Amino acid sequence: MEQVLRKVSQEYQALNGTDIERVEGKYVKDADWPKWLHIGRPVLIENYFAFGRDEPGEEEWTDDWLVDTLGSLPLSIAVTPDGEADALKVHSDGRTYFVEPLTEQEDIGTFLASFQERASEEDREVRYLQSQNGNIYNASIEETELRLLQDHIPVDVPIVLDSLGTAPDAVNLWIGDRRSVTSLHSDPYENVYYVVRGTKYFTLFPPTETFLFDERLYPHATYARSPTGALQLHPSHPVRHPPVRWLSFDPARPPSGTQPIHLTLRAGETLYLPAGWNHYVSQAGAGAGGGEGVCVAVNWWYDVQMRGMQWVWLALLRRGTRYLEDDAEVEEEVGEEARERDVPGAG
Amino acid sequence: MEQVLRKVSQEYQALNGTDIERVEGKYVKDADWPKWLHIGRPVLIENYFAFGRDEPGEEEWTDDWLVDTLGSLPLSIAVTPDGEADALKVHSDGRTYFVEPLTEQEDIGTFLASFQERASEEDREVRYLQSQNGNIYNASIEETELRLLQDHIPVDVPIVLDSLGTAPDAVNLWIGDRRSVTSLHSDPYENVYYVVRGTKYFTLFPPTETFLFDERLYPHATYARSPTGALQLHPSHPVRHPPVRWLSFDPARPPSGTQPIHLTLRAGETLYLPAGWNHYVSQAGAGAGGGEGVCVAVNWWYDVQMRGMQWVWLALLRRGTRYLEDDAEVEEEVGEEARERDVPGAG
Repeated sequence: MEQVLRKVSQEYQALNGTDIERVEGKYVKDADWPKWLHIGRPVLIENYFAFGRDEPGEEEWTDDWLVDTLGSLPLSIAVTPDGEADALKVHSDGRTYFVEPLTEQEDIGTFLASFQERASEEDREVRYLQSQNGNIYNASIEETELRLLQDHIPVDVPIVLDSLGTAPDAVNLWIGDRRSVTSLHSDPYENVYYVVRGTKYFTLFPPTETFLFDERLYPHATYARSPTGALQLHPSHPVRHPPVRWLSFDPARPPSGTQPIHLTLRAGETLYLPAGWNHYVSQAGAGAGGGEGVCVAVNWWYDVQMRGMQWVWLALLRRGTRYLEDDAEVEEEVGEEARERDVPGAG
Repeated sequence: MEQVLRKVSQEYQALNGTDIERVEGKYVKDADWPKWLHIGRPVLIENYFAFGRDEPGEEEWTDDWLVDTLGSLPLSIAVTPDGEADALKVHSDGRTYFVEPLTEQEDIGTFLASFQERASEEDREVRYLQSQNGNIYNASIEETELRLLQDHIPVDVPIVLDSLGTAPDAVNLWIGDRRSVTSLHSDPYENVYYVVRGTKYFTLFPPTETFLFDERLYPHATYARSPTGALQLHPSHPVRHPPVRWLSFDPARPPSGTQPIHLTLRAGETLYLPAGWNHYVSQAGAGAGGGEGVCVAVNWWYDVQMRGMQWVWLALLRRGTRYLEDDAEVEEEVGEEARERDVPGAG
């Protein structure tokens, strides 16, 4: 299996290299989107307002505008000690956990003010609006958390909708600063990613290179507040939260055989990130006047095409060297292994 | 490797079944073609005149019209004893060969007249206009054999051109009757196949099932005329015509594990046959008045998308269990093996 994957990966590299198509927004034709979906490689579109309308005016997406628009609405904010949400962390028990952030409710004004304070104090907690559950639009929830933004962000990118035949599963808002990073992972979604303010830095690896990463099962944990209010890692119940399979990745040392693609997405630019592509994301904020502040982005997640071969191939590449193992058997084994261990919170 | 292919094939079957999308031509939207190319499954379009213009008039594509239009132009006709061109045949030396037809030049009137004679005599030679080299349009030849048909058949299907970004590599005319069959094979082309007159019968297998067929290397041969004018199999020079890798397939006995898709394409209907799909084709003729006669079809072959993953996957599926073998080594071995054998015509 590994030999097969190695050859697939090398042939893909030989054919595609690491070049990423860059297109000026005004030259994007309707026929381009279906072509891009077919090719399944990232495309960066400059000056492309995926909103389906004019470039946001100067007054929009500033801190003041966000406060005016969202008022005192409670928003879900991901809190971590270091900006690493959904990441692998070594706990004081010596084990490595897959750790989810603590989620706290905060209004937008309090949330944005926290970035001013943080500028002077590096060791403060890191807050990131990144609930990733369709916080603007969600195909299965009527009243989303950020429904007040629906007047400003369309429910879909019409040409992508036409190409895939379905509306997005989720439309998300992301607000954070340079201390927040998203660890390497892939999603089973076609992703249209638009930066409103600030800059996002992507490191990308095609699905054909997934098998080259060290992927393991890690017990699940979340951050929680101690009685004194400090953030601490809290291992989860291993049956209710079974171990999570996750890649480990150090941006300074991509695995041998991979060809990382580095891509900077600036305000006003849109990235088409195809389903199954592994991405590591960091960011730089921008104040209303261009100074340090937050990065604001919106993304549309469309279900991947289930007919044809795309799903079958992505499943093969995602499972990699485990492709021939029986899914049910794997899960069973994992569950038992976890139950046998003396994991805090179990039973 | 075989286990990998077996699982891929089963997952593909589970996800896609054997249903083929059928669409009424007038409901085909521009956005449908790029979607079909992305899904990569056959689509049958009823009443769809891929010619990019109105349905051919009653006077067109009859025997008389063809004779009027093509006059005394010499055309390449494939001649076989039994209608099996590009097929596996056991020779009197006991070996199985991959046999190409004899090609003879004939004007359209003589060619069409042969079908009248044949009706009364089953054991006559079978003639098939099927040169498959872009006989109407060819990207690398200016003066094609059937250039006189260029006024009646457009050089491309505009919406497919838009989706793939390149004009067809070849546009072919096919004229034959019920005795001509095309043995099971796949092409590295996106294929738009349009029946003008008569009926084509397709048996299809997705690229994921290719490995289930018995594929072997066969020495090459062609039919040639003996001094008395009879057709006889003539083994080729094994260095100039190295052995050909071909599938063996008996339509009555599809291999275990495959799920054949049977599809009838009638006059006025168009089939999108995706690159890499294995197809076995037979046909029924229709006279000018609908009686027995010839089947007339046109097809557009577009180069498959080389960027992205499609080519890599199709190469894996085409090579199947041989995927991990080194191409150069395989070819070298084959060449030597052929040279060592005492093949007539060698040296």
